[in-house]
Amino acid sequence: MPTPTSLPLAAVRFTGGLLAERIERIGTVTLQRQWEALNDRIPGAPPSHAVRNLRIAAGDETGAFAGLCFQDSDMAKWLEAACYRLTLTSDAKLSAAVDELVDLYERAQAPDGYLHTYHQLQPDIPRWSNLRDMHELYCAGHFIEAAVAHHGATGSPRLLAVATKLTALLARTFGHGQDQIRGYPGHPELELALVRLAHATGDGSALELAHYFVSERGASPAYFTAEASARQEKTPPIYVHGDDLAYWQAHAPVVEHTEPRGHAVRAMYLYAAMADLTRDRGDKALGETCRRLWDDMVARHLYIIGGIGSDGPGGEKFSAPFDLPDDRSYAETCAAIGLVFWARRMLDLELDARYTEVMERALYNNVLAGLSRDGCHYFYVNPLAVTPPETHRRYDCRMVKTQRVPWFGCACCPPNVARLLSSLGQYAVSRTAEGLALHLFADMTIREDAWHVRVTTDYPWTSRVVITVEAAPAETVELAVRASGPVPGAQWALNGAPLTATAEHGYLRLRRRWEEGDTLMADLPLPVQRVRAHPGLTAAAGRIALQRGPLVYAVEEADHGAQLGTLGVRRDAPLEVSFDGDLWDGVMVITGEAQREIAPAGLYDDASPVRQATPLRAIPYAWWGHRGEGEMRIWIRDYET
Amino acid sequence: MPTPTSLPLAAVRFTGGLLAERIERIGTVTLQRQWEALNDRIPGAPPSHAVRNLRIAAGDETGAFAGLCFQDSDMAKWLEAACYRLTLTSDAKLSAAVDELVDLYERAQAPDGYLHTYHQLQPDIPRWSNLRDMHELYCAGHFIEAAVAHHGATGSPRLLAVATKLTALLARTFGHGQDQIRGYPGHPELELALVRLAHATGDGSALELAHYFVSERGASPAYFTAEASARQEKTPPIYVHGDDLAYWQAHAPVVEHTEPRGHAVRAMYLYAAMADLTRDRGDKALGETCRRLWDDMVARHLYIIGGIGSDGPGGEKFSAPFDLPDDRSYAETCAAIGLVFWARRMLDLELDARYTEVMERALYNNVLAGLSRDGCHYFYVNPLAVTPPETHRRYDCRMVKTQRVPWFGCACCPPNVARLLSSLGQYAVSRTAEGLALHLFADMTIREDAWHVRVTTDYPWTSRVVITVEAAPAETVELAVRASGPVPGAQWALNGAPLTATAEHGYLRLRRRWEEGDTLMADLPLPVQRVRAHPGLTAAAGRIALQRGPLVYAVEEADHGAQLGTLGVRRDAPLEVSFDGDLWDGVMVITGEAQREIAPAGLYDDASPVRQATPLRAIPYAWWGHRGEGEMRIWIRDYET
Repeated sequence: MPTPTSLPLAAVRFTGGLLAERIERIGTVTLQRQWEALNDRIPGAPPSHAVRNLRIAAGDETGAFAGLCFQDSDMAKWLEAACYRLTLTSDAKLSAAVDELVDLYERAQAPDGYLHTYHQLQPDIPRWSNLRDMHELYCAGHFIEAAVAHHGATGSPRLLAVATKLTALLARTFGHGQDQIRGYPGHPELELALVRLAHATGDGSALELAHYFVSERGASPAYFTAEASARQEKTPPIYVHGDDLAYWQAHAPVVEHTEPRGHAVRAMYLYAAMADLTRDRGDKALGETCRRLWDDMVARHLYIIGGIGSDGPGGEKFSAPFDLPDDRSYAETCAAIGLVFWARRMLDLELDARYTEVMERALYNNVLAGLSRDGCHYFYVNPLAVTPPETHRRYDCRMVKTQRVPWFGCACCPPNVARLLSSLGQYAVSRTAEGLALHLFADMTIREDAWHVRVTTDYPWTSRVVITVEAAPAETVELAVRASGPVPGAQWALNGAPLTATAEHGYLRLRRRWEEGDTLMADLPLPVQRVRAHPGLTAAAGRIALQRGPLVYAVEEADHGAQLGTLGVRRDAPLEVSFDGDLWDGVMVITGEAQREIAPAGLYDDASPVRQATPLRAIPYAWWGHRGEGEMRIWIRDYET
Repeated sequence: MPTPTSLPLAAVRFTGGLLAERIERIGTVTLQRQWEALNDRIPGAPPSHAVRNLRIAAGDETGAFAGLCFQDSDMAKWLEAACYRLTLTSDAKLSAAVDELVDLYERAQAPDGYLHTYHQLQPDIPRWSNLRDMHELYCAGHFIEAAVAHHGATGSPRLLAVATKLTALLARTFGHGQDQIRGYPGHPELELALVRLAHATGDGSALELAHYFVSERGASPAYFTAEASARQEKTPPIYVHGDDLAYWQAHAPVVEHTEPRGHAVRAMYLYAAMADLTRDRGDKALGETCRRLWDDMVARHLYIIGGIGSDGPGGEKFSAPFDLPDDRSYAETCAAIGLVFWARRMLDLELDARYTEVMERALYNNVLAGLSRDGCHYFYVNPLAVTPPETHRRYDCRMVKTQRVPWFGCACCPPNVARLLSSLGQYAVSRTAEGLALHLFADMTIREDAWHVRVTTDYPWTSRVVITVEAAPAETVELAVRASGPVPGAQWALNGAPLTATAEHGYLRLRRRWEEGDTLMADLPLPVQRVRAHPGLTAAAGRIALQRGPLVYAVEEADHGAQLGTLGVRRDAPLEVSFDGDLWDGVMVITGEAQREIAPAGLYDDASPVRQATPLRAIPYAWWGHRGEGEMRIWIRDYET
């Protein structure tokens, strides 16, 4: 197995600033609340049933299965997140909950290795009979990731043994052999999990099983079509509208795919696994496919908040190119998380800051917006504009909530946010063939092998980044540093002397024999940007989005009143940033003079529009919706005069 | 019964110009094609089954019912339209088809007067068991209107006798009596039909039955709720999303309604009947309700094309105030027709050009757009913007077609367009207590009683209107004339001398002893207008719609290429009108210099947008979609500089 590119989780600790605060909140509040939710102990929230299902499967309780067919995965993702937390911090209560789950899993697993409470508690539903919809393999993947995380946190082999036994069953069951099922997961996830398992155990057969699933996907004859016929499905599910097999990215072998299609989370997990396989098996065609899909996504399918996906009737999927509306955006929190997963793996294929820019954009906007400041409430769908009376009336916006909620009937997003943020160190830094690469600017310490690096910064609030090499390998090695924030032009100095090195694909590749105390410093440009969209993105025509560093900004009714549709700024209006300590723990707000149109007498009028000045206060998008229900908008009017 | 305010249809003949051409096309091509469609004889079009169902009910054929539960109504509306045509022009083939239907209806009607092939051919479905959904009363209404039109065209009592017998059954069945059903139609239509029947027969009991249906609607306990419980309906139909009983305007007694709600066509037919009852029964509370609903519709719920209604999942209904999007507008052709019906009746309540302006707007844009130039193809949904690849992918736009079609599975719109245009004379002119009122400017002759008026104009193409009184009652009578087009300021002259009379609510009320040869003349202002929308209408923020007279203009891909989202005009760019003889039979186009944004390198960019000049050619919206599939847009960018 190739060397993992991620550092051990304990090697990277966030020590201050925005990301550290979020991670600490997850570890001290969110994980605990999620455990309560999984145990159906949050009054008023939809019950999860997940832990109860597992207890029943383990024989500790009697009862019927409850919840959705993928309910197990919420629990596995929580377990994964909790293990990440425990890797970094002791927590007796959290450990006890983890131990409880480990014990339950061991006893719930069927003798042949099968593990999926939906089927185990409902034996009249045959296993593997509906790979397209029943999420057995999806749940297996999340469980395997949890097992890998558990081993990483505790060194215990227990959960890894359960995962290995499950994987052996999968390897016997699926493949090209005569008695094997030539299918693949309806919802990709298992593929990337098997790659992680292979890295954790050193067993390359898990990697080959992942390769089987990815390369079999979309083969002719179409497995899902035959499977649907066998159960006499007359019409495809309504959410497939217009996509057919592409909904599951199964319309053709993946190497023939030209644009991101179908359910967004499925796509992201699949593409992440494809990047993994490119890296670990040297698969060139797969690598070209990854790049082609990435480029098309960035060119025609990405919301400014680093999100993806629109709705159909429950579609949660990619729409037509440039169909990136404000109000009926889907931009599922899980999809943005998946995008971070994929971006991170693309960085393994090539160290290019175009991947980092998107990863950072998704993280600081779409992902952070999915979790409330208090760590206990979530968004599933992330709109770019809401108009509460209208948003609630429109059927095409029925999945849009205007306030975060404590849990969901389909609760994939909360534990996903928890596990990403709890393992963020593995996204901030990676190993390259030549040394280390630093992707995210955050106050952190990196201690791995001979490396000891300290990053001091208050980014994205302020510009200054200081990277101090406390120790390094005693040879010429490379420290690759992202050369700037989203705005290029940072001037770096090494030990006070300006660096003349030019960036290669947005990274400074600094090869040297590092000395203790070597200090890199830069002020990353953080101007207030007026961002515009490609003319094909009709929803943003005549509009701008305010951005500063990685943070996209939004305006809210709490500051500007209702009818934000014609709130805008003039091209020549100066915009300032300032720290506003009255809002939450304090955020950098963008202020200046805005304009809003005064309503004419009627609905239609041919008089010239009249505008009046009004103070602007834009807040970071991820902070929206914390001051009660009201309108919100990212894309504001770009007034020429 | 009060004197009808509409003139006999034969009294008004359109003699030239745009509307006359459309009406003639209906009479010589459209009606004939629709007859073929109703007889399932158009290859490739969805079969209607309507005539066949009637033949089976009459005993001339055997077979099963086919089509939707309101299939009868398409045939009744066609019959109504055909009778209007025959009122004005002899046509042997059309007469033969009409006679065929009359004979079938006489023999299809059940002995007790019942008439609804859906139920008659499926006796296991009990009559009156689902008033909410089964459209029996809706179909009864359309049949009654057809019978009234037949009598008006032929003087024959035959179909009127069938209608009278049906109405007697309804009067026995519905009401407050102990053995009566205290219900009302799920889809209003019967109410306004009964008013017409009362006027045609002089029998006031039909008027009282209409009054019963309107006043019972929305009473507590809710009839539709009880009816749904009785059939154990667990969840309401999905298209009700967010509206509940308001979908059928049955959430409260109508006099308590404050804003237009629910299915748009239902609402229009109901409000039209309410205006009828206000006029004929002097019902003040109902009249105030009509005005309140009208004002709210115009202030917050009306598309610039004179359309109403958005979609939900099959909702075809009013949305939240100001939710008037371009691309997922519904603006059903039938709903705009219903709006014309309602506007006409509001003019009976008060002679106020604010009703005329909306009636004209709906007629010249949303209604005319619903019928192709060749008279054989239709739009059901009328979008204000289409982007064909995207429009076809989006589930919320699934009802939007980008090209007109020969017929529909639900074919309410085609015969509706036919009957409105075939009876347009009754919308152009009306009787008032004081004389005549002229609402629409079109080349026509009016001959009724002692009146003989000739209107000569090429409006809306050119400004000049000449009204010549060839004869008039030999006393002081009033000729009320709409004072201007949508843009005020027409200067009228009578026999060459400027008129000093000021308009009252947009009408010149000209009381005099008219002399043969009296000639009124004006040049109606027809500037090119840049119309803007209220700031609450977010889809139109930063945009203008071009309008000239009653015609709203659109831009198409055929003239400007794709990606019309950033096509716009500068504030100071001159716009001209000219006659373009190359397009169809020739239309007035708006030309000038437009601007379009050049696409930047990526999807998001902070550079100032770059625009390039491009020639503008805007065509009347009703003419869109005749040059193959492509983008179309009404609201174009309003560039300040």
